[in-house]
Amino acid sequence: MEKIPILRMGPFLLVTIQVDLYDRLAENLEADLVQMVSKTGAMGVLIDISAVSIIDSFMGRIIGNIASMSKIMDAATVVVGMQPAVAITLIELGLPLKGVQCALNVERGMDLLRSKIALNEGTPDDYSDTE
Amino acid sequence: MEKIPILRMGPFLLVTIQVDLYDRLAENLEADLVQMVSKTGAMGVLIDISAVSIIDSFMGRIIGNIASMSKIMDAATVVVGMQPAVAITLIELGLPLKGVQCALNVERGMDLLRSKIALNEGTPDDYSDTE
Repeated sequence: MEKIPILRMGPFLLVTIQVDLYDRLAENLEADLVQMVSKTGAMGVLIDISAVSIIDSFMGRIIGNIASMSKIMDAATVVVGMQPAVAITLIELGLPLKGVQCALNVERGMDLLRSKIALNEGTPDDYSDTE
Repeated sequence: MEKIPILRMGPFLLVTIQVDLYDRLAENLEADLVQMVSKTGAMGVLIDISAVSIIDSFMGRIIGNIASMSKIMDAATVVVGMQPAVAITLIELGLPLKGVQCALNVERGMDLLRSKIALNEGTPDDYSDTE
């Protein structure tokens, strides 16, 4: 199976990573996700990595890339379901996932995204937002 | 990766199948799912098979098993995201997935589950949270 499915749930997209990402699969995921954000007007992307028990610098970089791309496309990214061992490995690898917010599970991730959207919509945007 | 993650979303559980199911993985999934239904008091199970492009009689049977188990545990099962080729194959294999409801995508599947719950209970938001 050559594709990681991207599920639409209301204003959010959900990606569950269950397989080891290799170059082409990761590239496809990035391309698909950016297109889905554009097509659906999604306001947030949830990346579930609860099935990931081993993480390397490549996968850490891909997650960072996805978050950066989504940000440019005006969608926030939240990584959910990280296993404790993965968190330890990421820090030991020197990959603190800067700019990526994390939540314990999908429900908390959705709450976080909802509160971010509410925050953004509540602030007046008559002055330039350089974020 | 030896486990298929089961995500909790409100009163529902979401399972995304991205890898080929072999015996032990399928058994683990069945056991995990039944336990999760019991633990969370979930009222519905969504099985997303949008990443499944090839289906065989084994996988068809597993999906049927999961639906039957969930039913006994008082949770409805909806299969979502089936690819057209998979639907053709299932019928040609003589596996019409009896007792399993299908929906085009996750959102429609959730709507279907919500309407089923509303039908059964009268109120859609009245689900017990036993976490």
